Amino acid sequence: MKQARTRRPPLIGRLVVFGVGLIGGSFAAALKKHQAVGHVVGVGRSRANLLAAKRLGIIDEITSDPARAVRDADLVLIAVPLGQTRAVMTKIAPHLGPHTIVTDAGSTKRDVIEHARRSLGDAFSRFVPAHPIAGTEKSGARAADAELFADHLLVVTPERATDPRAVKRVLAAWKLAGMRTVSMDADEHDRVLALTSHLPHVVAYALAGQIAGYADAKRLFQYTGGGFRDTTRIASSSTEMWRDICIANRGALLKAVDDYTAGLARMRKAIAVGNGRTLEKFFNQARAARAKWLPKR
Amino acid sequence: MKQARTRRPPLIGRLVVFGVGLIGGSFAAALKKHQAVGHVVGVGRSRANLLAAKRLGIIDEITSDPARAVRDADLVLIAVPLGQTRAVMTKIAPHLGPHTIVTDAGSTKRDVIEHARRSLGDAFSRFVPAHPIAGTEKSGARAADAELFADHLLVVTPERATDPRAVKRVLAAWKLAGMRTVSMDADEHDRVLALTSHLPHVVAYALAGQIAGYADAKRLFQYTGGGFRDTTRIASSSTEMWRDICIANRGALLKAVDDYTAGLARMRKAIAVGNGRTLEKFFNQARAARAKWLPKR
Repeated sequence: MKQARTRRPPLIGRLVVFGVGLIGGSFAAALKKHQAVGHVVGVGRSRANLLAAKRLGIIDEITSDPARAVRDADLVLIAVPLGQTRAVMTKIAPHLGPHTIVTDAGSTKRDVIEHARRSLGDAFSRFVPAHPIAGTEKSGARAADAELFADHLLVVTPERATDPRAVKRVLAAWKLAGMRTVSMDADEHDRVLALTSHLPHVVAYALAGQIAGYADAKRLFQYTGGGFRDTTRIASSSTEMWRDICIANRGALLKAVDDYTAGLARMRKAIAVGNGRTLEKFFNQARAARAKWLPKR
Repeated sequence: MKQARTRRPPLIGRLVVFGVGLIGGSFAAALKKHQAVGHVVGVGRSRANLLAAKRLGIIDEITSDPARAVRDADLVLIAVPLGQTRAVMTKIAPHLGPHTIVTDAGSTKRDVIEHARRSLGDAFSRFVPAHPIAGTEKSGARAADAELFADHLLVVTPERATDPRAVKRVLAAWKLAGMRTVSMDADEHDRVLALTSHLPHVVAYALAGQIAGYADAKRLFQYTGGGFRDTTRIASSSTEMWRDICIANRGALLKAVDDYTAGLARMRKAIAVGNGRTLEKFFNQARAARAKWLPKR
């Protein structure tokens, strides 16, 4: 017979979250909501943000001593901007318990895996590289939302050395947060995300930045409508986070940017010579693919 | 003493709308809602669309005889894709009554004005070039919405020859539809709109079209999130309309595309050499301008 829910021990006894922002905060909030976590410790650069997280009930404890924090943790989630991932790993590596599972929420996977391989030592087999594909342009613990991940996709990119039991545990936690899950190769992940997420951010930043750069920028913004607003929405995302992603995934991203530039040049040529037929063909391909393949959500 | 509303004759007795789509249909719907129009005649290529507009009460009459339709019209609104504007003007020019005002809703103004100057003869002084900056990615009479223009901006770009009384009449109609209005030079309009509207469409079509063009496009689309969705939303717009806009405004648009390409190349370089400081400066400029200047709506 199934035990009553309240009698079952939580999925994760002790969770340590590095970076209690939109992603880290929402993960903790989701587990708390499902009573799937015993005690949550938050680590971060901004004390104000951690205090906000504690007031919101997302974390139970704030620590400035990561070594002590991870000692008897069941799960450590690294949800800091990618540029800090390696420093966090180096700092916690000597203190990880023999059963502690480490996972991350980074938007790129190959570079995170190589950092982990170099930093974590024996614990590398209990490192589960993961990427919850969810988010908004907002940041900080105040933006945390237990429903942020609902019906979104979690990608894990385990290596040969990764312990399948660790993967299973991490998947279970994200599933509780509402995610569908899929496993793929890290390089493939990085290519797919370069095209579907990182390139769109570069495109949006470039567009908003261009208009911002003209002498009459203020006036130009007054003439923007819903099209400009939506096309550039993600240019309001955390600049530090996206700086780090662009550089961490530069190989796949540069290829994506080059393909984009080439496509734009083809459109430019059609416009310049007034070739309406070619232009409409470009537009139709884009429009039809969106109609057919964009997830209904 | 003010007359009761129902006693006043409507602002426009007889309105003829060429192109009863999102814009033309919404204009007629807004005037009807405010009892500001007596009789609305719809002209268009698709009989199914016109029948839908009539069923929805947006128009009162369908005609396939534009000459007769415009003979005793008070106002003619040309809301067809830009590529058809000239043909419509040429067709109606000999039949316009001596007081009939003609206006348009084209997204570019210089080319429309030059078509009007060549086609409309004496009636050119009663042609009011106008552009309601509103819309969605939807099209057709079924997408018409009497509230579409509320709080949006109407730009008129009168020439020296334009009769100020005609301008006043047209402004009054769009104000009833809820629009704020502004007058500017046609060339300036075309530059501003190239940057704030036409370029974003090209950018969005290029991005969605690129992903659509890969061999694994279907799978890539499954990994897209809210960022890609919003950045490419306007790539679902009418391809015919945007083909025509791009070509009609090619001068200003090519300049905008070139500036965009140059900005993108600068970002690419910063990514390639791992220059996080420069990259973050680009991103911050974009983000700050959006926060400061994007209209709150």
